[in-house]
Amino acid sequence: MPLPTIEWEGDIKGRIRLIDQTLLPNELKFVYCEDIKSIWHAIKTLMVRGAPAIGIAGAMGVILGIRDIHTKDMDTFLKELRQVVTYLGSSRPTAVNLFWGLTRMERIAQENKKRSVHEIKEALLQEALKIQNEDKIICRQIGENGAGFIKDGNGILTHCNAGGLATADYGTALAVLFRAKEQGKRIHVYADETRPLLQGSRLTAWELMHAGIAVTLICDNMAAHVMKQGKVHGVIVGADRIAANGDTANKIGTYGVSILAKEHGIPFYVAAPVSTFDLSIKSGNDIPIEERSPEEITNGFGRRTAPEGVAVFNPAFDVTPAKNITAIITEKGVIHKPSHESIQYLLGKHTS
Amino acid sequence: MPLPTIEWEGDIKGRIRLIDQTLLPNELKFVYCEDIKSIWHAIKTLMVRGAPAIGIAGAMGVILGIRDIHTKDMDTFLKELRQVVTYLGSSRPTAVNLFWGLTRMERIAQENKKRSVHEIKEALLQEALKIQNEDKIICRQIGENGAGFIKDGNGILTHCNAGGLATADYGTALAVLFRAKEQGKRIHVYADETRPLLQGSRLTAWELMHAGIAVTLICDNMAAHVMKQGKVHGVIVGADRIAANGDTANKIGTYGVSILAKEHGIPFYVAAPVSTFDLSIKSGNDIPIEERSPEEITNGFGRRTAPEGVAVFNPAFDVTPAKNITAIITEKGVIHKPSHESIQYLLGKHTS
Repeated sequence: MPLPTIEWEGDIKGRIRLIDQTLLPNELKFVYCEDIKSIWHAIKTLMVRGAPAIGIAGAMGVILGIRDIHTKDMDTFLKELRQVVTYLGSSRPTAVNLFWGLTRMERIAQENKKRSVHEIKEALLQEALKIQNEDKIICRQIGENGAGFIKDGNGILTHCNAGGLATADYGTALAVLFRAKEQGKRIHVYADETRPLLQGSRLTAWELMHAGIAVTLICDNMAAHVMKQGKVHGVIVGADRIAANGDTANKIGTYGVSILAKEHGIPFYVAAPVSTFDLSIKSGNDIPIEERSPEEITNGFGRRTAPEGVAVFNPAFDVTPAKNITAIITEKGVIHKPSHESIQYLLGKHTS
Repeated sequence: MPLPTIEWEGDIKGRIRLIDQTLLPNELKFVYCEDIKSIWHAIKTLMVRGAPAIGIAGAMGVILGIRDIHTKDMDTFLKELRQVVTYLGSSRPTAVNLFWGLTRMERIAQENKKRSVHEIKEALLQEALKIQNEDKIICRQIGENGAGFIKDGNGILTHCNAGGLATADYGTALAVLFRAKEQGKRIHVYADETRPLLQGSRLTAWELMHAGIAVTLICDNMAAHVMKQGKVHGVIVGADRIAANGDTANKIGTYGVSILAKEHGIPFYVAAPVSTFDLSIKSGNDIPIEERSPEEITNGFGRRTAPEGVAVFNPAFDVTPAKNITAIITEKGVIHKPSHESIQYLLGKHTS
């Protein structure tokens, strides 16, 4: 059922297969990358997007770059590996997960430099597959940990896309819904279209339809009305960054949805891997909010829909205060009523 | 400062001048209607829209239809007038205000049928201008009654378009802002773009810029974030129908905004003429909600942005409960904390 956002096909002589997300939802097309330039291009042009998915793409891209290095000299190999990593990093210089994936690959090479070049190449392929596999396991564990919150017959509202397309294949918020579906629960999802970039409309609705889960697309401003009609029994969203006190940055509009849920007595869940916690940030007040281009709002659909010269405010994220969050669902367990203490407890218990 | 949505130019041999709203915001073009077919076409194709504006267009259209009736026989004239009215009514058969305007014109003819055809034609022109003028006066009185709620330096959020374009020239919700501006108050308006048809982006932002009022365009899902930043001191919206208890139907998304305003301690105002009250409707539960075409959401701007076959829910309106409304601003006065009693009091005081 889950969608294979990105896969490695074959042995070290194989290739990367990925879903071209720029064509969704109008076309489901797999793109095959057989050399480093094509994966660089795929990352650059957002064919593959979503933090974990980009990390995997970078790691797999390293294999395409190093498999044809025909030296047996380790120093030469490591030098060429460095060039490969630098080149791949230039595809999306601000994507933190890309560099996380590339750094992890370089470290494996360093740790194995006493071995032969042939063996290192094999170790690198295994590491790339491991990165992908870890993400799959994390997503499934999030799904498992969250599915209990979903009851048979529930209506669930979600915002933006925290689905398989942004991860190895199973998503975070959507993982919970995929798992509930696998458990035989009948659910109906209301997907906010999520202006300005319409990830809910283009990606979430598409993923859910693909998974055989009933989904109804609504505009963001319809969520309150749908809740008032009693059609929504829970809200579940992903997260971009979670502060030490549980305040959660996520796609713009999430904060508003949390208020509407509270007003209607509907539980509000965040699903995210523990790597999303940034304990160096005390509270949501300290999370910087990226502002994006006005054109996403004024020219979002291929033609201008706002007056020339109009002032636009286009924050990419907002912050939902911990008090509006019923629980945070992670791969390591569920944090009920998130707070500094409950977060420390979950993270500390498993990492110390 | 206010925009002349529709005007009659000259004497009975004159013409209608209107703003072609289908070209906004990309082009401000006046259309001139010199015969009945051209005004029929303008109403049909939404060049002129908004309930009061359509009523005025219909009444003025009658003049274009009857001025060239070359008979002195009253029965013949009234028969031809009937044909004109029927023809104009076919331009938008569901627009209540169109029929209200046309009926009012026919009644004037009936009331004056002892007079000459020449005199009746003149009386009809005067009636059309009177309908327009009454609307101008109502809008200005709403502006006057509401402007006191706006303080110098305020940030005001509005949703959809309750501006001059929907009325003779001055609007309802926007009338309050126009009047505050005339009083020398510096205000900053946040305009929700208002999916799916973007009236906030296309029309409200344009009107406010035209009036020299600072406006920032946001997506609907950004309202909560802007409120949290302390930038909004009041919300003001129009209304399509108000029940006897104060529950208010307005553009989809209004209800959600009322909840966000309450959460942030921001007053929420409705501005509407007393003709908007429908006392035959007890509460918002009895207001039917029109559902519109899925294509407005999936193909809104010239290209498809959602999966083929996706289920869509597209309610045109929602209902804001009276308890979320700080005050309703009408041309006859302000109803604080709207309730069955306070509404009866205002309406009764002035109409009995």
